[in-house]
Amino acid sequence: MRAAHVIGRVFCTRQVPQIDGKTLLLIQPLSWDGLKPVGDPLVAVDAVGAGAGEKVFYVAAREAAVAFDDLPAIDAAVMGIIEGHVYR
Amino acid sequence: MRAAHVIGRVFCTRQVPQIDGKTLLLIQPLSWDGLKPVGDPLVAVDAVGAGAGEKVFYVAAREAAVAFDDLPAIDAAVMGIIEGHVYR
Amino acid sequence: MRAAHVIGRVFCTRQVPQIDGKTLLLIQPLSWDGLKPVGDPLVAVDAVGAGAGEKVFYVAAREAAVAFDDLPAIDAAVMGIIEGHVYR
Amino acid sequence: MRAAHVIGRVFCTRQVPQIDGKTLLLIQPLSWDGLKPVGDPLVAVDAVGAGAGEKVFYVAAREAAVAFDDLPAIDAAVMGIIEGHVYR
Amino acid sequence: MRAAHVIGRVFCTRQVPQIDGKTLLLIQPLSWDGLKPVGDPLVAVDAVGAGAGEKVFYVAAREAAVAFDDLPAIDAAVMGIIEGHVYR
Repeated sequence: MRAAHVIGRVFCTRQVPQIDGKTLLLIQPLSWDGLKPVGDPLVAVDAVGAGAGEKVFYVAAREAAVAFDDLPAIDAAVMGIIEGHVYR
Repeated sequence: MRAAHVIGRVFCTRQVPQIDGKTLLLIQPLSWDGLKPVGDPLVAVDAVGAGAGEKVFYVAAREAAVAFDDLPAIDAAVMGIIEGHVYR
Repeated sequence: MRAAHVIGRVFCTRQVPQIDGKTLLLIQPLSWDGLKPVGDPLVAVDAVGAGAGEKVFYVAAREAAVAFDDLPAIDAAVMGIIEGHVYR
Repeated sequence: MRAAHVIGRVFCTRQVPQIDGKTLLLIQPLSWDGLKPVGDPLVAVDAVGAGAGEKVFYVAAREAAVAFDDLPAIDAAVMGIIEGHVYR
Repeated sequence: MRAAHVIGRVFCTRQVPQIDGKTLLLIQPLSWDGLKPVGDPLVAVDAVGAGAGEKVFYVAAREAAVAFDDLPAIDAAVMGIIEGHVYR
């Protein structure tokens, strides 16, 4: 799992029914060393009620679907809100 | 999930039966920051009736199959048409 | 899915039984823009009877197994032979 | 599977229930040639009771879930503690 | 699937039970064009009885588990020993 910063949301005019009612968060991946931005933003489905500006961790690829009961066709999900971390 | 621009279609002389009757869209991945082209075009199966020139978002890898009832052997699917997004 | 050019075959002295009787094609990935070589050749299992020199499209990773009834332990499969494509 | 060094832990204020009671280790991937750091640290769920400073090996992506009976939505798991390796 | 050279083995003091009794091979990925080393060595579970110095081909990611009856939590498996290949 990797760290990210919630930086926005995405809205659709039309989408597959599996995604109806889910929140599409735009997240910026962060390094664990200093929580600095790394790589490009992506869209992840929210599984914990994360809000704009929060530091979160997320899973990518098929395992993201397992965070939801209906196993939707998604490839990234926000799984937790970070309180802190120990880094040596 | 990532953003993309529908830039074309692919036609086959012969293909596995699982793909018969599905539309193969050629899509150009875009960055969320400015929706500028990033990386190489790929082929994704259409799940929402997207047309040429539309901005869409897609899933890649095995989860793409879940967008269809018959779970075909595909690795990318167009899941929604983007109306807009908030980016801070 | 991505485009590729069939450039050869691979033969084994010993292999897992799941692969017995399947054709191992050596393929060179191509860009959709001009069908020029990109990246390194890989081995994909043939699902459509593709021959040397043909332009094909293939899936990579676990979804490749779904092209076969016995879901073998493979990570790439040739899924179709390209007739043509529209690229804007 | 790849080698890594356990360099820390991550704590959450809120998380999906599947992760409750599991230890989130912060690990630094290492090369097998000399066990030198390569790439960025990531978070992996502990499956063997690994402690800070230990050399471990881990799996990434969906297969990580298989190390646990409840198949949680995770994408990396520490699978073993390295005793040694032969490298020619 | 990709080609590799068996360059060593890995030993563990403690590991998840799914890996007990399996051989952890250290392999160096090779290009199909000339069988030259490319990328970093990784650990793959042996499914065909490959020995040190042999040229093999392997699968990576979740599909590797399918080579074994118990579907262990692994992400790379050696699937066959290469006799030769045709490369144009």
